[in-house]
Amino acid sequence: MSNEAVILACDWGTTNLRAWTLDGAGAILAQQDFPLGVGRLAPGEAPARFHAEVRPQLRAEGLPAILCGMVGSNLGWQVAPYADCPAGPDDLASRLVEVGDGVRIVPGLRCAGVAGAPDVMRGEETQIFGWLSGDPARRSGRHLLCHPGTHAKWVLVEDGRIVRFVTAMTGELFAVLSEHSVLRTAAPPDDDDAFDQGLAAAGDGGALAARLFSARARVVGGDAAADSTSSYLSGLLIGAEIAATPRLVGEPPGRVSLIGDARLCGRYRRALTAAGVDVEVFDGEVAAVAGLFALGAPA
Amino acid sequence: MSNEAVILACDWGTTNLRAWTLDGAGAILAQQDFPLGVGRLAPGEAPARFHAEVRPQLRAEGLPAILCGMVGSNLGWQVAPYADCPAGPDDLASRLVEVGDGVRIVPGLRCAGVAGAPDVMRGEETQIFGWLSGDPARRSGRHLLCHPGTHAKWVLVEDGRIVRFVTAMTGELFAVLSEHSVLRTAAPPDDDDAFDQGLAAAGDGGALAARLFSARARVVGGDAAADSTSSYLSGLLIGAEIAATPRLVGEPPGRVSLIGDARLCGRYRRALTAAGVDVEVFDGEVAAVAGLFALGAPA
Repeated sequence: MSNEAVILACDWGTTNLRAWTLDGAGAILAQQDFPLGVGRLAPGEAPARFHAEVRPQLRAEGLPAILCGMVGSNLGWQVAPYADCPAGPDDLASRLVEVGDGVRIVPGLRCAGVAGAPDVMRGEETQIFGWLSGDPARRSGRHLLCHPGTHAKWVLVEDGRIVRFVTAMTGELFAVLSEHSVLRTAAPPDDDDAFDQGLAAAGDGGALAARLFSARARVVGGDAAADSTSSYLSGLLIGAEIAATPRLVGEPPGRVSLIGDARLCGRYRRALTAAGVDVEVFDGEVAAVAGLFALGAPA
Repeated sequence: MSNEAVILACDWGTTNLRAWTLDGAGAILAQQDFPLGVGRLAPGEAPARFHAEVRPQLRAEGLPAILCGMVGSNLGWQVAPYADCPAGPDDLASRLVEVGDGVRIVPGLRCAGVAGAPDVMRGEETQIFGWLSGDPARRSGRHLLCHPGTHAKWVLVEDGRIVRFVTAMTGELFAVLSEHSVLRTAAPPDDDDAFDQGLAAAGDGGALAARLFSARARVVGGDAAADSTSSYLSGLLIGAEIAATPRLVGEPPGRVSLIGDARLCGRYRRALTAAGVDVEVFDGEVAAVAGLFALGAPA
């Protein structure tokens, strides 16, 4: 009976909702995306849209459902209070928030961050538990993971639990500098040579505001084409991130598992490899499905 | 005859033109600002506006004139090619660019910057030479100067010459993050306690993208009011700059001379003092006048 749907799993973020039906072994039977990110919804609108659109379109009216991501924030369906680190899959599975009609929401995670401020995640924890569920070897020892993005996460996993993490707003820095600063350009970041020059310019990751000016100076000085600025900037920001962020979670990176979208993970892989770090890339969507199944599969 | 005007001196930047008439001792006789920054002018318009507005309004029709700043760039009156470092006042005085009618433009400076890219300045060199002219003791030994701003300059002066410098786009990072990122707020950066918390969060200046996220996390986590974000961000960015930029010009900062506007120099003074660095503040306008006079006074 393994090709009968047993659960409706959703990664429900700020911009989009991605839904899957899964069989009793966690395999995908159907998948659909919806432009129903919580940032696009009116307050209180999430349950009605879920029942009116997501359930019927995936033929999942009667199934238990599990949701992760910003749907558990104050912008979403209902607040699923953060769980504190360290936390493993069992800790979160026992704290799922029931919101009726067989729907449960995965709580986010919180830990002590930089400078005493708390750090938080919602959604990445589920992908990490999906990665964890894929291989028993990952559930013992220490592992350093990175989830690139607008707000990238560096995560230390020890003996199957998330011990601590740090958020780096590298993606957002890239976006605001690319759109609004003297470094703005229309060209996409697809020039590997310029990316590598940016990596080299990142140095130890310190004095970033000075290193950033080199992205301007190399063009003004005639050493580079303006179209290469975006790639250079990407290399510089990612290089500075990987040079200095891992030690904030207490781990020198001999090996890093990247979880996320293929294009962005490819850039991080290039940067980490150039720094002599061993890299494994794990697809973010596969991780999300595995994590939702691990947390929410019917007993 | 020391209160007869002998020269018309102008600091002519991207946004504004500030003009003074000076007597034979370099004292200011008259001063006026004009909204004629080169960024606001049509190509080729600078000379006509200068002769039609600046000269008559300062009663300076017959005087020799000296101009510094972006007026010497390709956006300005005529390109005054960069002089290479090391360079002192005599080097620049001999390379003033004559553009007719007794008008001369001060060249900018160029040196090898971060990651092999050239670094450049236009206007700050004149203020530094003004600072230099104010005290014979400044013309020997090594001195570290900082000119805060959108693109802050850290400058090493040795035996009366600018040896090298580094530009840090700290002011621009502050502006784009304050206006366009998740850290945007309308409140001004006038909260000293939050500024000091930002300084503390700057650490060694590395992993800036991670440290920046603490400006968000401290508010989301309920530890701080959103209105204090701007001050915290200012402290964090300036703290990261002073922690790591001085060594890029090769000088650990036991003492720093700040040249610039009083408000911004006040924030840098607070940050440097907290880091145990001795600080002197020198007014940027006084420095510009003294530098223009030192470079351009009639023999």
